[in-house]
Amino acid sequence: MRWSKYFMPTAKEAPKDAETISHKLMSRAGLIDKTASGVYTYLPAGYRVLRKVENIVRREMDRTGAIELLMPALQPANLWQETGRLNKMGPEMIRFIDRHNRLMLFGPTHEEVITDIVRKNFNSWKHLPVTLYQIQTKFRDEMRPRFGIIRSREFLMKDAYSFDVDEQGLELSYARMKETYEKIFTSCGLKFCLQQADSGVIGGKFSEEFVAQGECPELEIGHIFKLGTQYSELMRAVFVDNNGKEKPFVMGCYGIGVSRIVAAAIEGNYDEKGIQWPLSIAPFVVLIVPTNIDNTQIKESAEKIYRQMQHKDIEVLIDDRNESVGSKFADGDLSGIPLQIIIGKKACESKGEIKIRKENRLVEVTIDNITGWIEDYIKQQNNG
Amino acid sequence: MRWSKYFMPTAKEAPKDAETISHKLMSRAGLIDKTASGVYTYLPAGYRVLRKVENIVRREMDRTGAIELLMPALQPANLWQETGRLNKMGPEMIRFIDRHNRLMLFGPTHEEVITDIVRKNFNSWKHLPVTLYQIQTKFRDEMRPRFGIIRSREFLMKDAYSFDVDEQGLELSYARMKETYEKIFTSCGLKFCLQQADSGVIGGKFSEEFVAQGECPELEIGHIFKLGTQYSELMRAVFVDNNGKEKPFVMGCYGIGVSRIVAAAIEGNYDEKGIQWPLSIAPFVVLIVPTNIDNTQIKESAEKIYRQMQHKDIEVLIDDRNESVGSKFADGDLSGIPLQIIIGKKACESKGEIKIRKENRLVEVTIDNITGWIEDYIKQQNNG
Repeated sequence: MRWSKYFMPTAKEAPKDAETISHKLMSRAGLIDKTASGVYTYLPAGYRVLRKVENIVRREMDRTGAIELLMPALQPANLWQETGRLNKMGPEMIRFIDRHNRLMLFGPTHEEVITDIVRKNFNSWKHLPVTLYQIQTKFRDEMRPRFGIIRSREFLMKDAYSFDVDEQGLELSYARMKETYEKIFTSCGLKFCLQQADSGVIGGKFSEEFVAQGECPELEIGHIFKLGTQYSELMRAVFVDNNGKEKPFVMGCYGIGVSRIVAAAIEGNYDEKGIQWPLSIAPFVVLIVPTNIDNTQIKESAEKIYRQMQHKDIEVLIDDRNESVGSKFADGDLSGIPLQIIIGKKACESKGEIKIRKENRLVEVTIDNITGWIEDYIKQQNNG
Repeated sequence: MRWSKYFMPTAKEAPKDAETISHKLMSRAGLIDKTASGVYTYLPAGYRVLRKVENIVRREMDRTGAIELLMPALQPANLWQETGRLNKMGPEMIRFIDRHNRLMLFGPTHEEVITDIVRKNFNSWKHLPVTLYQIQTKFRDEMRPRFGIIRSREFLMKDAYSFDVDEQGLELSYARMKETYEKIFTSCGLKFCLQQADSGVIGGKFSEEFVAQGECPELEIGHIFKLGTQYSELMRAVFVDNNGKEKPFVMGCYGIGVSRIVAAAIEGNYDEKGIQWPLSIAPFVVLIVPTNIDNTQIKESAEKIYRQMQHKDIEVLIDDRNESVGSKFADGDLSGIPLQIIIGKKACESKGEIKIRKENRLVEVTIDNITGWIEDYIKQQNNG
């Protein structure tokens, strides 16, 4: 990608309402744009990060044998009457009366819908255990939206639901999901801890939350629940066990704030100059910075490396803008792209520099060896 | 994937409200589940198809140089007041008053939001032309939802917006998008025609719609508009041209009904037994049908081929359910998976059959040659 043709608008100043470092840096680095209070557009580079996180979550969920589907955000209120939750939910749940005078809502969570699907389609112990999940946009009319995408009114979540024949099965499903969450957060470059939590309106008998380490006062990034038979009993969701007896499904549910991971990754990976993206979720892996595009040798060397990177399928951005070298360096550091290839005056000696952003370390490499060096670095990081 | 562990519930009968063949077959093949009137869950196999269509759309959009972002579904009404469209939109647009007493809406389209983003971030002819797009869930409170996912209240759309310096630029952007749409629909196995259309509440001076061929009375699958300066003038979205003069952006907008493509592909590819998926968007490429899993030779031959397919990264489903051969054949045809490998009595002679679903043609192949045959077939289809 060429920065001159891309849409990654950087800014020296953060918006006045930005309190946390992730909100400030996401705005300054051109990752998000505010559409309304608590409502953001993911600009192209921000969306690339969001999709990388989404794909890590999907990969690890699929590896556990969980099956992906997509439930609707729109839900009929009558399902929520069955569990009595319609009245328990506060004004943060968005409701409206539809054209046929039926009460509808935008589901902040999907226990009712998934239990309805399972009771209609699963009737035997032979189908169990099963874990179903989705990655879906959720809405919440927050009283006080803040911290950018951390406490926003529209966000991306992964929610999974496990169905087992008994408590022992639930313990296994729960343990497997806990382990998967650790893999996901580690893959996304987060440091986190696990703590016992209040189960709130989700209910159930036990829950734990994953909290990202950082300065932000919020950042629950995951919450896992042992629900037991609370929903299946209220909604009469039953299966026939191996003795021919009807039993309610024993359930668990497991949420991840996919968009929150993006902010949490910044809270844990930055310095005074900007973001230091983990390689796994960076918008681009490599940034090529020709210091002066009016110098033919510099420009041609940079373009050559750009073509090599594209040929190797390495995600690369080239800063071909007609900006001062100072602006380019500042924007490069702000963007947090893990590897910067700086092509400057030493191009005439066939040399360039590679900057490893997270260490701010510079390595001088001959131009012919740069692509190989980058490939080796990526391989090492992926194996480590 | 093993059918016994998967969630693809087939049914002999379609729901009573299903009028079109795609609605009937999507329900019977276990691709969708109705949550409320006009509101559907994509069950796992249905979701696989939806994502394949989404990825074809993304691939072709990226190839044109269009840049992906993600705008919010939630929009503040004040943006719609700027263009006067707040009052033009009918009751199909979902509105609500938020906790701070502001009128909010779920945007059925994003001209206002994208124009707001562009006016804040682009100020020079040097940034143009640019085409921005998103793939996003939209909501519509339909008076009469029908035809399953075709006229539903929640659906996936791709919407793109082009910004040019003048009319001539718009003509080029429009022509490029038209060509891209033809590639997308062809890649998804659709037959379609293009016709001049009414621009409705989107406005602008000229629009054309892509209509899929089939029996369904709806199935607009794409609509492209030359908007001109209608939105940019009303919202004062201007750039400085190469003579230093302020000018409004010249815009186009381009929509694709991503979920509608799924239904349209079925309307154009089925027979009396079920779906005949095009290879490009099928939930799985290969279905292995061991006719009798109690027969060791049949079972082991089928499992061996299953492992080979997985090793080759061919998307495969094995029907390891303990069902009658008649049910398995009926479900296999209903599912529409393009290639069925039938392992039956001839397994003792090391022979199996491959059924090409779209031709209902059977080919006898020795078991050792099956995987190679399938690989060649896929290669041929992808090159044709």
